[in-house]
Amino acid sequence: MKPAIAGNMRAVVIPEFGGPEVLRLDAVPHPTPSRREVVVRVHASGVNRADTLQRRGLYPPPPGASEVPGLEFAGVVDEVGDAVTRWRHGDRVIGIVAGGGCAERVAVDERVAVAVPDGMDMTVAGAIPEVYMTAYDAVFLQAGLERGETLLIHAVGSGVGTAALQLARRAGAVTIGTSRTASKLDRAAAMGLDVGVPGEAEWDEEVMDATGGRGADVILDLVGAPYLARNQAAIAQRGRHVVVGVPGGIRASLDLRLLMARRARIFGTVLRARSVEEKAGLARDFTKSVLPGFADGALEPAIDRVFPAARVADAHRRMEANENFGKIVLVW
Amino acid sequence: MKPAIAGNMRAVVIPEFGGPEVLRLDAVPHPTPSRREVVVRVHASGVNRADTLQRRGLYPPPPGASEVPGLEFAGVVDEVGDAVTRWRHGDRVIGIVAGGGCAERVAVDERVAVAVPDGMDMTVAGAIPEVYMTAYDAVFLQAGLERGETLLIHAVGSGVGTAALQLARRAGAVTIGTSRTASKLDRAAAMGLDVGVPGEAEWDEEVMDATGGRGADVILDLVGAPYLARNQAAIAQRGRHVVVGVPGGIRASLDLRLLMARRARIFGTVLRARSVEEKAGLARDFTKSVLPGFADGALEPAIDRVFPAARVADAHRRMEANENFGKIVLVW
Repeated sequence: MKPAIAGNMRAVVIPEFGGPEVLRLDAVPHPTPSRREVVVRVHASGVNRADTLQRRGLYPPPPGASEVPGLEFAGVVDEVGDAVTRWRHGDRVIGIVAGGGCAERVAVDERVAVAVPDGMDMTVAGAIPEVYMTAYDAVFLQAGLERGETLLIHAVGSGVGTAALQLARRAGAVTIGTSRTASKLDRAAAMGLDVGVPGEAEWDEEVMDATGGRGADVILDLVGAPYLARNQAAIAQRGRHVVVGVPGGIRASLDLRLLMARRARIFGTVLRARSVEEKAGLARDFTKSVLPGFADGALEPAIDRVFPAARVADAHRRMEANENFGKIVLVW
Repeated sequence: MKPAIAGNMRAVVIPEFGGPEVLRLDAVPHPTPSRREVVVRVHASGVNRADTLQRRGLYPPPPGASEVPGLEFAGVVDEVGDAVTRWRHGDRVIGIVAGGGCAERVAVDERVAVAVPDGMDMTVAGAIPEVYMTAYDAVFLQAGLERGETLLIHAVGSGVGTAALQLARRAGAVTIGTSRTASKLDRAAAMGLDVGVPGEAEWDEEVMDATGGRGADVILDLVGAPYLARNQAAIAQRGRHVVVGVPGGIRASLDLRLLMARRARIFGTVLRARSVEEKAGLARDFTKSVLPGFADGALEPAIDRVFPAARVADAHRRMEANENFGKIVLVW
C-alpha cells in the first residue's frame, strides 16, 4: 500500500482478474481534486455489468481513469478544487465517472456532478446516475423517441431497462419489454409496461402483433447478438436500434438489404469513454429534462438489493446470475 | 397494347424477368397528371443499378408506382395538373420518381421536380437527380459530414460515388475512395480524390494510415457485405456508415462490441420508397444547397456513356459489367 499525503480510504480493488472472489476492500490513497474537480465522500455506489467485465479483465479503464471499479456514485462534496464554482462542502451530488466509483471517496469534474433531488434518500440516489443517464442519452438524445412511438426494451428488468421504461412512459411512448424471467415481466407490468414478451419466444412476431404490424420505432438493446436478426425483423420503418450492452454475445449476421428497406439505423453507444465536456453536456441536459421527474414521482429508481460495500463479491454474484430486478447498490 | 385516351408513348418495358435481352421499347399509355402533378416530356433518363435489379425481378416497384423502370428524368414540362402552381408548360425540370423514368413521358408531383440549371445541356441534367440526391441525402442530411472530416467512398467510380466525391470536396471534407478498377481510381484522382485505395487490398489499414489512425468519419457504402468487417475497422470514433447499395452481398457478421466501442452508427437508406412529402423536402433542400454548385462549376456530372433509349439493353449490360465511370444515360 502506497502512502499518500491525503491519507487512505477503503475502495474495491481487483488484485487479479477472475470471479467475484477476487474482489477485496483495501486501503488506497485518497483522490485529491484538480482545479475543476470536487472530491465526494461516497454514500452509495451503483454496481454495473461493466464492473463485472472489468473484474474479469475484459473491460479495462480508459486511459487516465482510476483502476478502482465503479462508474457512478452518490455522496456529499468534501473538498473542492481551486477553480470550482458550482459546489460547496456538504452539497449532495450524484454522477458518472470512468472509474473509481466503488470507493469511499471519488474525484469528479464539477460539471459532471448533478444535484441529488431534495429529500431523496442517498442510497436511492446512488441508483440513479448510470442507468437513467444511459437510458435517457440512448433513447431520447440519440434515438429521438417521440410521444406515441413504441419503445422495445430488451432485458426490461435490468437497471437500464427499468429506467428506460419509466422515462418512456413519462414521455408518452408505448412500451414493450422482453425478459427471459417471467417474474421480471410481472414486475415490469406493475411498473406500467404496456406489453411484456418472454425473451425465449418468437418475440419479434409478438412485437409486430402488438404494434399492428408496424414494428418498434426504437429498440434499446441490452442483449446483443442473439437478438440481432429478430431486432431487424421487429423494427419499424425509420426505426432506431441502440446497442448499450451485449452480454448475450458480440457477433451476429446483419442483413444490410433489410436495413436499407426499413431505412433503419443501428447505434453503438457507451458513456464511460466520453470526454469530460461531453459528460458535462449530458449532465446539463439530464438536470433539466430528467431530474424533475424524480421530484414529481414519475421516476423512482427500482432498487433490487443494497449491500454493504464489504459484500461487493455478493453484489457481483447476484448481477452475474441475472437475479436482479433493477439496481444493485453498495453502501459505504 | 391497351388503347388510352391520352395516346401512347414509347417506354422501356420488362415483359419477363431476366437478362438485359428481355428489355423492350414498347408503346404504353401516356401518363395523365393528377391535380398536383406535371407530365414531363423526357429528354434523358439516368440508368441505375436498381433498374437492373427490377429487370431481374429482385426489386419490384413500390405500391402505386409505374411498372416501367427508371428512377429519374430530365425533361420539359408538357402538361400541368389543375392545382399546379410551380411550373408551366416548357419549364426544364429534373427529378426522382419511384418508377416510370425510362419513358418518353413521366408524371411527377410538382414539389418533387427541381429546375434544371440555366444553360445546362439536358442530357447532362439527366445525370444529376438520382446520384446527387442520394449522395447529398446520405452524406450530408443523414450522416452530417462536416468540413475537415474524412469521407470514405466505396465504389468511388460509380455515379453516386463520383457525385459524393464532388459534394464532399465542395464541403471541405477529405476524400478517400475505393475501387476494384485501377483506372477508375486514376480518373477519380483527376477529379480531386485525395486518397485512392484499391478495393481488393487491405484497404482498412490504408484508410487508418491515411487518417493518422483516426479512421473515416463517414462511410458511403455502395458495396455491402464483403466490406462490413473492414468498414467497422476503418471507422472513426462516432463515425457514421451509410449503406446505399449492396451489390457485393447482403449479409455479413457485425461486431456489436466494436460498434459500441467506436460509438459508431450504421444507417440503411433508400430514396425510392419515400413518401411524396419526404421527396419534396429533399427537393427543396437540394435546390437550395446543391443546385448552385452546378452553376459555379464545383459540381459537374461524370457521364460515362449516353445511349439512345432503343439501346437500353446495352446500357444495362455496361452497368452490370461495372465498366462505367460515372453515369449511364438514355436519351429519347
